[in-house]
Amino acid sequence: MLKLVIADKAYSSWSLRPWLALTQAGIPFEEVRLRFGSPTYKQDFREQSPTGKVPVLVLEDGQRVWDSLAIIETAAELFPDKGLWPANPGNRAHARSICAEMHAGFMQLRSNMPMHLLAKFPGRGWNLAVQADIDRVEAIWRECLQKSGGPFLFGNFTAADAFFAPVVTRLDTYVAQVAPDTRAYMDRVFATEGMQTWIRRAREEFEFVDFEEPYRRSVHG
Amino acid sequence: MLKLVIADKAYSSWSLRPWLALTQAGIPFEEVRLRFGSPTYKQDFREQSPTGKVPVLVLEDGQRVWDSLAIIETAAELFPDKGLWPANPGNRAHARSICAEMHAGFMQLRSNMPMHLLAKFPGRGWNLAVQADIDRVEAIWRECLQKSGGPFLFGNFTAADAFFAPVVTRLDTYVAQVAPDTRAYMDRVFATEGMQTWIRRAREEFEFVDFEEPYRRSVHG
Ligand SMILES: N[C@@H](CCC(=O)N[C@@H](CS)C(=O)NCC(=O)O)C(=O)O
Ligand SMILES: N[C@@H](CCC(=O)N[C@@H](CS)C(=O)NCC(=O)O)C(=O)O
Repeated sequence: MLKLVIADKAYSSWSLRPWLALTQAGIPFEEVRLRFGSPTYKQDFREQSPTGKVPVLVLEDGQRVWDSLAIIETAAELFPDKGLWPANPGNRAHARSICAEMHAGFMQLRSNMPMHLLAKFPGRGWNLAVQADIDRVEAIWRECLQKSGGPFLFGNFTAADAFFAPVVTRLDTYVAQVAPDTRAYMDRVFATEGMQTWIRRAREEFEFVDFEEPYRRSVHG
Repeated sequence: MLKLVIADKAYSSWSLRPWLALTQAGIPFEEVRLRFGSPTYKQDFREQSPTGKVPVLVLEDGQRVWDSLAIIETAAELFPDKGLWPANPGNRAHARSICAEMHAGFMQLRSNMPMHLLAKFPGRGWNLAVQADIDRVEAIWRECLQKSGGPFLFGNFTAADAFFAPVVTRLDTYVAQVAPDTRAYMDRVFATEGMQTWIRRAREEFEFVDFEEPYRRSVHG
């Protein structure tokens, strides 16, 4: 069976992407969870990943695939019928473009509004550069949803939705002002079985954590 | 025919990646070159690319594929026999991992030693964080070359070599101290027909440029 190495569900945005894509596609995998709060954190991550970062996918033969995007491409090859990418070639090229854009970009949004799944921080982290990132996210989603008709970016749920799922949680956590069609898309992502499971497990992991978390303010309903 | 939109060959590291991958694979394309020095630069880039960044690949039906990594994946699907990725699935997963790592990482190397193909700046930009990036690059190359036996990362030239080609030029431009096996690999990349053509054209474009370039010091080889 495939093994997916991830970190804490409340915080690890890059872990969420392949976890959600594989889960929604019905691709079975065993989950290995590392902890950012572990005293041996650096060493734990290094043991699992040549970059010291997760996610990492471990294939049946032991080959390690690091980085979320390489994981999606490899899984899409291993499970060509699971619809990780849109079936239509033009849509697939479009989906890959927006995932790659996400992968290398949106630095302002990512650094000023880090994923914090169980909290609400209205307005925190906002500035004009973050807003430019949010505007671009809304434009990407709107173009896709108008073309596909929804409910997800390319109709059915694909890796592209998974790649933007941490942005969905950030816009919610930081209570960003977004258009109604954006909010409706966010609600549809939150309502997926995969996201519901991820969020429930994030809460369970959280209740387990016995070290102080000075930055926790409130817990997300 | 495919169209590849790129910027100045002396500076545009992201343009070099797909240009070199497609060229070395023998995939024909028409080249559209934008100029960083153009007074209408921002607008020119916006007209070609929804992100305002190049490279962009324009497919026969007009579909635009932005971002170097999405371009490689799309071209690999369109030309499955051209060997853009390694043929062996394990090697392909490895190649995708290091390309994705490059795509989202090596920020210190990329920001402190920007690509400047026709210049030599010995030692400029160096610091310990840059050195950590260089160490990681050397480790990646060494692991691949030892496994494959060379001459390129996965035996034949693939997109992985193209993805690291701008790093090859930077290590040369900034005269980084590297191990003999690293230098030998760099020389093999420089010696490819694709790199030779790119460098020759960069020089031709350069002689054409009529604005001042105060940061130019010396012309490479
Ligand atoms: N480009 C990587 C980014 C991975 C990444 O930054 N992972 C974070 C967790 S979300 C991590 O492992 N950080 C540990 C560290 O930097 O020490 C990907 O797409 O997978
Ligand atoms: N992640 C993108 C990066 C593209 C990129 O940064 N391109 C640069 C040229 S090398 C650019 O177009 N810059 C124009 C600008 O930022 O205004 C890719 O992989 O293609």
